[in-house]
Amino acid sequence: MIQLTETLLNPEVTRRGLLITGGRPPSPPLIDQARQCCHFTLCADSGAACLFRMGIFPDLIIGDMDSLAPDIYAELQKSHCQTVVLPTEKDYTDTQVALEWLFDHDYEEVVLLGGTGSRWDHSAGNGFLLTGFGRRNKPIVMWDAVNAMRYISPGHYRVPASDHRLSLVPTDDAGIGLSLSGLYYPLEGADVPFGQSLLISNEFSEPYASIELMRGDAWLFVSRDA
Amino acid sequence: MIQLTETLLNPEVTRRGLLITGGRPPSPPLIDQARQCCHFTLCADSGAACLFRMGIFPDLIIGDMDSLAPDIYAELQKSHCQTVVLPTEKDYTDTQVALEWLFDHDYEEVVLLGGTGSRWDHSAGNGFLLTGFGRRNKPIVMWDAVNAMRYISPGHYRVPASDHRLSLVPTDDAGIGLSLSGLYYPLEGADVPFGQSLLISNEFSEPYASIELMRGDAWLFVSRDA
Repeated sequence: MIQLTETLLNPEVTRRGLLITGGRPPSPPLIDQARQCCHFTLCADSGAACLFRMGIFPDLIIGDMDSLAPDIYAELQKSHCQTVVLPTEKDYTDTQVALEWLFDHDYEEVVLLGGTGSRWDHSAGNGFLLTGFGRRNKPIVMWDAVNAMRYISPGHYRVPASDHRLSLVPTDDAGIGLSLSGLYYPLEGADVPFGQSLLISNEFSEPYASIELMRGDAWLFVSRDA
Repeated sequence: MIQLTETLLNPEVTRRGLLITGGRPPSPPLIDQARQCCHFTLCADSGAACLFRMGIFPDLIIGDMDSLAPDIYAELQKSHCQTVVLPTEKDYTDTQVALEWLFDHDYEEVVLLGGTGSRWDHSAGNGFLLTGFGRRNKPIVMWDAVNAMRYISPGHYRVPASDHRLSLVPTDDAGIGLSLSGLYYPLEGADVPFGQSLLISNEFSEPYASIELMRGDAWLFVSRDA
């Protein structure tokens, strides 16, 4: 059984990387929280700006640097912060390259900040990166002020109760098979087709929610209203 | 070839339904724009609140009415607005039931407002409803202040140029095969795997973008920065 914390992290991970990417900038308290449970901080391009405003240099910046303000870039070049400059016209987004870098360097789990915002194309693209990497056993947890989200494949997961809502969205075209307990709406050996909204906004009824995913894969969310 | 307008509507549709659901309330100008191109207005539960504030009654409200303010509900009962009250504990969300209602009543395309917001579980669930309904030939276009999004299956689509970015996100587990032209980053017979961010934020370079999707399915976005 995989125990997850309230923020959907796997507490057994000993090397966890933090990736801050462009999008709606994460708040300083959220950045602080993420840095406390991560062992390396990587920024994808403009994701660095919110760190600089806090007076913090990341361990590494990866990107084409086209969305980084010139004064920040100048400050960066004076610092000892490591940079990997990518060509502006490339096949993958800075975020995807940065995620590959972290997993190539043996980080077992990644916390992703800044991946969502008002641009759905970016948010959706980042959501599917979680699935794409997840299917290669490279777990990513995406956080913002009101949500934590991670990809899950068949297995047994335990999530501690909180005042957040728990939701599951099937990402496998063939749907999912699952059991849910410890929640106000439990399920026993249910089949949920792809493209239905059956598993949204469940509530905790016991100290732990238990999710047994028998078939397919899904996004797991804990979210609260802002 | 399917011609789409700048807002991703199919102009050949003669019966188009508008669905306003809970989530971040759409602005009055966006509601006005949607009502002008739709022939019926349905609200899912709390989606009605933003219409009431504009002094407008929808043609129909569907929902468990648990998130509708009591004073609005009282006003509603005095009006001639048709209502379908669903049980609070049910297998599908109000949004999904409302979408089924519109397609069952021969609306050929649906504009969905209010489907996104800070709660990712809701936004993602609504995104996958577009895919689930789309795979049954029931087209839905989701709008907010900065994005329009629709599901596409194999076929040829033409989107008029604008100052928006055009993005595609593969939703088929097996990835997609496509050609793109009229865009700054064209593609010819390319295969794009699922879970990659290769097709995000393209720019128009000609009066029309042409998308030929040979294999798989995807979300098509036109988005601009807020």
